[in-house]
This record gives sequence, C-alpha cells and structure tokens, in this order.
Amino acid sequence: MGEFDLIARHFSRPAQSDSVEVGIGDDAAVLRPTPSASLVVSTDTLVEGRHFRSGVDPEALGWKAAMVNLSDIAAMGGFPRWLTLALTLPEADDHWVAGFAAGFRAAATSCQAELVGGDITRGPLTIGVTALGECLDAPLTRSAARLGDVLVLTGATGGAAAALALLESVTEEDIPPSLLHRLDRPVARVAAGRAARGLAHAAIDVSDGLLADLRHVLDASGVGARLNANALTPDTDLQAAATRTGSVAAQWMWAGGDDYELLVAVPPTHARTLLEIWREQGLQPIEIGRVTEASGLHWAGDAPTMDPVSSGYQHF
Amino acid sequence: MGEFDLIARHFSRPAQSDSVEVGIGDDAAVLRPTPSASLVVSTDTLVEGRHFRSGVDPEALGWKAAMVNLSDIAAMGGFPRWLTLALTLPEADDHWVAGFAAGFRAAATSCQAELVGGDITRGPLTIGVTALGECLDAPLTRSAARLGDVLVLTGATGGAAAALALLESVTEEDIPPSLLHRLDRPVARVAAGRAARGLAHAAIDVSDGLLADLRHVLDASGVGARLNANALTPDTDLQAAATRTGSVAAQWMWAGGDDYELLVAVPPTHARTLLEIWREQGLQPIEIGRVTEASGLHWAGDAPTMDPVSSGYQHF
Repeated sequence: MGEFDLIARHFSRPAQSDSVEVGIGDDAAVLRPTPSASLVVSTDTLVEGRHFRSGVDPEALGWKAAMVNLSDIAAMGGFPRWLTLALTLPEADDHWVAGFAAGFRAAATSCQAELVGGDITRGPLTIGVTALGECLDAPLTRSAARLGDVLVLTGATGGAAAALALLESVTEEDIPPSLLHRLDRPVARVAAGRAARGLAHAAIDVSDGLLADLRHVLDASGVGARLNANALTPDTDLQAAATRTGSVAAQWMWAGGDDYELLVAVPPTHARTLLEIWREQGLQPIEIGRVTEASGLHWAGDAPTMDPVSSGYQHF
Repeated sequence: MGEFDLIARHFSRPAQSDSVEVGIGDDAAVLRPTPSASLVVSTDTLVEGRHFRSGVDPEALGWKAAMVNLSDIAAMGGFPRWLTLALTLPEADDHWVAGFAAGFRAAATSCQAELVGGDITRGPLTIGVTALGECLDAPLTRSAARLGDVLVLTGATGGAAAALALLESVTEEDIPPSLLHRLDRPVARVAAGRAARGLAHAAIDVSDGLLADLRHVLDASGVGARLNANALTPDTDLQAAATRTGSVAAQWMWAGGDDYELLVAVPPTHARTLLEIWREQGLQPIEIGRVTEASGLHWAGDAPTMDPVSSGYQHF
C-alpha cells in the first residue's frame, strides 16, 4: 500500500466547509479566507520517543497531534479553520493509519477545523501539523502584558507530567483516567481564547510548562511577575501520583509541561468578567499572581518546593 | 544551544512584508491576506536518506526544502507569500543550521515568500515545510484537462535523476554542474504557473516523475494522452551520464522525478501564446503530446525504451 492509497483510504473526504475550494489530492489546497480576517498559522512537530511514547494508541496520537496545534490558534484568540498533516511513517500500517486518522479528524471536527492537505512519507515516525485559523480583530500576543495585570490559567496544570511519570513504573490501565486524559487527550481552549480577546492583554498556551511559558510572556512584554505558590494545589489523583512516584506535585504543576491550558494577563478591571465567562464555559480558572514592574519571577510568601533548575520543556 | 537560541540566531528576522503582523516567536504567526484572494496551501516533508542524501550541503538542502513546496504553489498558478518550517535535527549543530537557514531564506526571497514561523525539535533529520500562497482568480488544478489539449512542459526533465545515479559511483565534483543543479538547486516555476492561469486548463509539477504526474492529471480529469516519445531528447551531459552509468536516458526523462518543471494541459488555441510567454521568461518549453478521449497513455510511434514497471517516485 503506497502513499496515495493510504491518503485515499483514510484522509480523503468530501470537504465539509464551503471554504475549501480544492481539498486533499491536488498540488495544494485552495481555501477561501473570511473577508477582512487575519490569518493565524502555527506549525508543530511530534517525534516518537520525544513528544510521545512508542506504542501509544494511534487514535490518541492523532487527536493530540491536531490538538497541540489547535491550542496555538486558541492562544492567539483565533478560530481554527484548516489543518495540514505531514506524516512520516516507518511502514505503511493500514490499521495504525486508520486509528490515527480517526483521532486526528475527531479533534479537528471538535474545533470546527478541517484537514485539507499534507503528505505521507516513509521514515522515522514523525508528525508535522500546520494549523490555520482566523481572527476578526487584534490577536492576543505574548508581548502585551502590562503592570498590574492578573495572571490567570484556564485550568489546572500538572496532570500530563504526572501521567508521564507514572508510565515509567505502571501500565496505562493503572493510571487514573483524570491524569492519562491530560496527557493523551488534551483539549485546545478555543472558546476561552476567543473570549479573552478584548479583555486580556496577552496570552500563551502552557505547553512548555507554566513557568517557562510565563517567562516567555514576561520577557516579550518587558515585565516581571509575583506569584502565589499556594495558587496551585494538587487534587487527590495528582497528590497520590506524587506520593507513589516519590515526586513533588508542585514541580509538575509549575513546570511539567504538555498541559495546553491558556495563561492570560488580564487587567484587574476585566478579570472578573473573563473569569465569569470562562466558568460559564465549564472551566475552572485559577488566578496565580500579578504582573509587576520588577523583572523576573518573585513569590508571594514561600516558593513552592521544586527542582531549582527546572525551566520547562526543552525541545533540545 | 536550545531550540529558542537556534531560532533566534538563524531564523528570527524583522518581517520583510507588511502582510506579517506577528512573525516568528509567538504561539502562531498572524498574517494579513490579500483581500478577495484565495489561499493556496501545500505541505511536504523531506526525510534524510529518502528525499536527500546524508551529508548534503545544508545550504543546498535549505534551498531545496523551500523550493519543492513553492513549486506546489507555482503548479496552482498562485503567488507564494509565506512559509513555515518544522525542522527535526539529531543535534543542535549551529554551523549546519546557519547554512540551512541561509539556503532556505535565499529560496524564499527569490520567490517573494517569507518564513513566518515553525519549530525545531530533536530527532531523526526531517524537514517539514508548509508553503502558503495566494491566487486572485481560479487556480490551476489537476482535474480540468480536456480532449485535444496540448501537453507542455516548462523545461527538460531527467537531470535530477541523472545526478542521483551518478552519485552512486562518483563524487559531487565529478558531476556536471548542469545535472547537479537540477538535483540540488531546483527552481519553482512561479512566473510560468501564473502565466498559465487563464490560458491552460490544468497543471501539475512533475516532482514524482513525468509519467506518474501526467497520470495524476489524466485520472483526475477522466481523459487519456497520446505522447511523442521523441519529444524528449537528452542533452550532451545527460547522454554522457547515461552512458557512464549504463542507464537509459529516456527512463530519467520520462520517469525520473525530482524535476520541478510544470506540466500543463493547454487548449490548442492558447498553446502558442503560452509558449511565447514562457520563452520570454527564459524557459525552453517542450510539447510532449495531446490529451485524448481514450483513457491511459498511448505513444505516437515507438514507446521510449525504459523499465516497463517504472511508474514514478514512490513515497512508500
């Protein structure tokens, strides 16, 4: 079975959206942008053994590959539109590709995005996704956090890192679903990102770990932050995982990575409104601190106990 | 040196075009599309040992990675605008990345396109590129070839395949530059593709090999073709390479692949105009046959002598 057969069997589908003039199967896709919208584009690569474990369920992998890119669109306050997929596979495994395609499609559909093109080549398992979204007014960037802004997360962090740590000693079946889902079934906070436009000053998704991504915002904005170490408290599953693996839950929550919650800097005058909207969306937002003039990170009270050199996910 | 250092050193540059609202360094790029243009998107992956040889000059590789994607935009009759790059590297080799980035940027600039985002991860050497272009009126697809159309190439094929064959027995220095350039420094036929809009019915770039890509056009259009085997004649370098390696030049020209010329199906009434424009652009177009009602490929006179099972580049 060759590239074209795999694509025809598992990826070619009639276009769902009127915006897709030419979909999968030509030299390039042809898309109709929304008039006067800006285009939001993000590319991410997932490499076996580095961004996902060998033997992971292909459907979960397809889901995650789409979602981590859609999360970048969400972090700009954009609405997802289209995806391309560059799949490099060691062999043409029809069953594996079927599962991967189903997971990818499910994630895309849940965010109103559509796969419009890509390629399949033979090589070490690598997944490259480009997500295209649109934004009808100014996008949320990393560089616009201002003095006094409240730093708010769309939800709890640390679950993905806890699941990854547990996988070193136990099988998937023995991992609490609440944690395994955080690792394998992330959900891009698209509605939350869109709601933040016009209210928040800056946003980022905390895929590299909360503190590392917060530093990206602070550096780009030329400000600092004062954080409340008690803002993040482990739930029962997370605490049990920490105890079981001899780990520190605070490490996972503040620096674990792979979380795909959004972190925004929102002025105090708009914070209450945004929190209300996010709660109505079913989220459980968490205020973690404030933007300060002094550069760098400071802790209100004691810093959480964690590995002092931890600075988030290193791609290298 | 980490991902962010490599990106900052070699890829982050002030945006060249007004269309880039947010460039490299945020969760996603934010771009301003041309009003009423359609968006043309293509993704391709290059894997070491499969799409390029190990140890190839990184600058040539960067050039080619950009060009093979820009060629897909050209094949739709679009004008290139933006590129994203997903670079997976076995190690953070600063010198290698500098060369790659220079070649990539040179290719992009030569087509008026700009790198706007991407990522660098550690893993087996793999290059994923997404090219974004625009088209102000109907794009050229594969599926619109019509009975009687003339099949015309923008230029000679086979050089890349000849260079690849020579590399099995001789060093780069011993390969005629005319052939090595076809392999390592392809040029996307952007102006030729744009000129073909409104004149030609269908277009494709012959990256998979001329006959294989012609079949893609014929299958998508529901027609056949009658080809003139004498249309393609090897030049001195190509013939010498065939003699030296005991190969058949016709095999390289009709089925070699990696050529990045455009093949168009143009109605006879417009063929002369298109050929004139292409010659003014410095191209040496070649008429290879006609579109017929009968499906499949037929030869006017003797078929060229070549491997009968050859059907173009197989990605798997």
